[in-house]
Amino acid sequence: MKASSVVLIDNLPSGVPGPEHFRIDSSDVSDSVGDNGILIKILVMSADPYLRGRIKAPGDGNIAAGEVMAGFVGGKVLKSANSKWVEGDLFGAHLPFATVQLLTGDVLAKTLMWKLTDMITEDNISYSIGILGMPGATAYGGLVDVLRPKPSETIFISAASGAVGGLVGQMSKQIYDCKVIGSCGGEEKCNLVKDSFGYDAAVDYKQVANATELIAKLKEVAPDGIDMYFENVGGMHFEASMEVLRPRGRIAVCGQISEYNSATPQLCAFNPMKMIYTNQRIEGFVSTRWLSGQEGNFLVDMHKWLTEGKLKPQETFFDGIDQWPIKCLSVALHRT
Amino acid sequence: MKASSVVLIDNLPSGVPGPEHFRIDSSDVSDSVGDNGILIKILVMSADPYLRGRIKAPGDGNIAAGEVMAGFVGGKVLKSANSKWVEGDLFGAHLPFATVQLLTGDVLAKTLMWKLTDMITEDNISYSIGILGMPGATAYGGLVDVLRPKPSETIFISAASGAVGGLVGQMSKQIYDCKVIGSCGGEEKCNLVKDSFGYDAAVDYKQVANATELIAKLKEVAPDGIDMYFENVGGMHFEASMEVLRPRGRIAVCGQISEYNSATPQLCAFNPMKMIYTNQRIEGFVSTRWLSGQEGNFLVDMHKWLTEGKLKPQETFFDGIDQWPIKCLSVALHRT
Repeated sequence: MKASSVVLIDNLPSGVPGPEHFRIDSSDVSDSVGDNGILIKILVMSADPYLRGRIKAPGDGNIAAGEVMAGFVGGKVLKSANSKWVEGDLFGAHLPFATVQLLTGDVLAKTLMWKLTDMITEDNISYSIGILGMPGATAYGGLVDVLRPKPSETIFISAASGAVGGLVGQMSKQIYDCKVIGSCGGEEKCNLVKDSFGYDAAVDYKQVANATELIAKLKEVAPDGIDMYFENVGGMHFEASMEVLRPRGRIAVCGQISEYNSATPQLCAFNPMKMIYTNQRIEGFVSTRWLSGQEGNFLVDMHKWLTEGKLKPQETFFDGIDQWPIKCLSVALHRT
Repeated sequence: MKASSVVLIDNLPSGVPGPEHFRIDSSDVSDSVGDNGILIKILVMSADPYLRGRIKAPGDGNIAAGEVMAGFVGGKVLKSANSKWVEGDLFGAHLPFATVQLLTGDVLAKTLMWKLTDMITEDNISYSIGILGMPGATAYGGLVDVLRPKPSETIFISAASGAVGGLVGQMSKQIYDCKVIGSCGGEEKCNLVKDSFGYDAAVDYKQVANATELIAKLKEVAPDGIDMYFENVGGMHFEASMEVLRPRGRIAVCGQISEYNSATPQLCAFNPMKMIYTNQRIEGFVSTRWLSGQEGNFLVDMHKWLTEGKLKPQETFFDGIDQWPIKCLSVALHRT
């Protein structure tokens, strides 16, 4: 069968990636699934900020020049010789960005892949890379298991209108009844999170020059400080949040978008001593623990909340694999 | 009854405190315990690094000039009208540094105080401010409930021969079978932790000029990095530990001794992004949660390990309240 794939032309240590850094290749894929393999069709490929880190330099699981891009995808099983999968199964997975793929039993055993057959249809297969995929698991894991909210606590979320942040805020409001403050870039996004997602307040970070100004803004909307900070961006957001974090406060470190395009990340000024008497906690995490089912109850809970209408997925997508280098990546990297 | 107390003469924002900053006062204490009160005799008063912070400036629970010092003590109930206490009971508590005290029912209800009657005698009442007191609860809470060691993991401990660090290392070795690396000042302490406490390796931080040199030392003794860091001192120890912390690594922030004598704490250079893919955690904590019994199983476990001979308490003490300003505080503040 014919397959198309997204190939990285050159690594990009810093700066904003564009279509000139990728090409679309064609190849032939065998459909002999062997003893234990499956043949799959990829229907959606993600374009999220984590991909920026993957193309900085080869090594450490990153993509080298000339290699096929890899990341989160969703798709359908075309043919199966594996007892866990049947033809027609829908799934989310972490795989190369190629439209048709033959996964041998060995490869399959090492692949992060979760079944969505009973939860979605081909019509909303995009949920496999959204609310029922990496962004959903990131929001769920970070909020439910890392931050562990209590009712009436205050949460601050950066990149608050993004794929992850938007879900964190809605869950904080709808499931945990928290006071929710989001940081977004621009008035339009600030209005979206307040009007559509039900946030209590929004801070337009584009109107804020540094950590000191952000602290002042946060004190206006949360005079008693914040109990939780969902960290998506880094830099001044982290410093300001530490400053207004209350006793027993928690920070879930999920991403550092503000640093993704720099070759060397900017270091934060940090005073660990402040954490002692306040019993504060900072914890980094990635979605893999929840996507693999190793931890928590992500798919069941999230699907339930989605079905009950408690969460509104926000999605932006474009048709055709050739659109990925042109539109999707730039959308993702400017989405905050 | 006659009581003596330690009074702070002047606050000391920075620098090393000495006998000139304290005086011993005498006063009369009534022994009418009323409806619900108790009369107590303080037998031991702690002299640990946390006291340095208390005399920097008034406010925030600190001591103001002219006030009686307060901190962790151990003692005996002389007279009781309270159903929870009987004459002869031994205890640990957080109280003013005065030899005889009348605690009304109201004061008692607000005092952190734990019963040790069945665990110690007057002969080892010093355990009430050591292994069965704040240092013990700090070591226990930080290791057992914050760091949560797994067998064969590697732990790095700063101030590793101190009241807290020495217990953390012994517990890591004796209870959890971890690889233990301690940082101490000078050859003598390095030998003590290896020979008496059973540590696998010791780093003499006085031979190390900066974080880069400490990283090199740590890589020699732990080529694969560390899984846990018990943070007692701050500064270069924190930065170096973050650098060699493995995936799923944890840091328990317990103290920052290196910063206690400075007016403004030195900030660490910190990259939160490093914590994401590694699922790392940094958590501050104070012993109150375990001393109050709110969390964990401190007294029962610690007393058991002590009785089984698994832990060797290290104590330095001097007789007489007048010795406290002269010897004890300086011992405590240079104990690392």
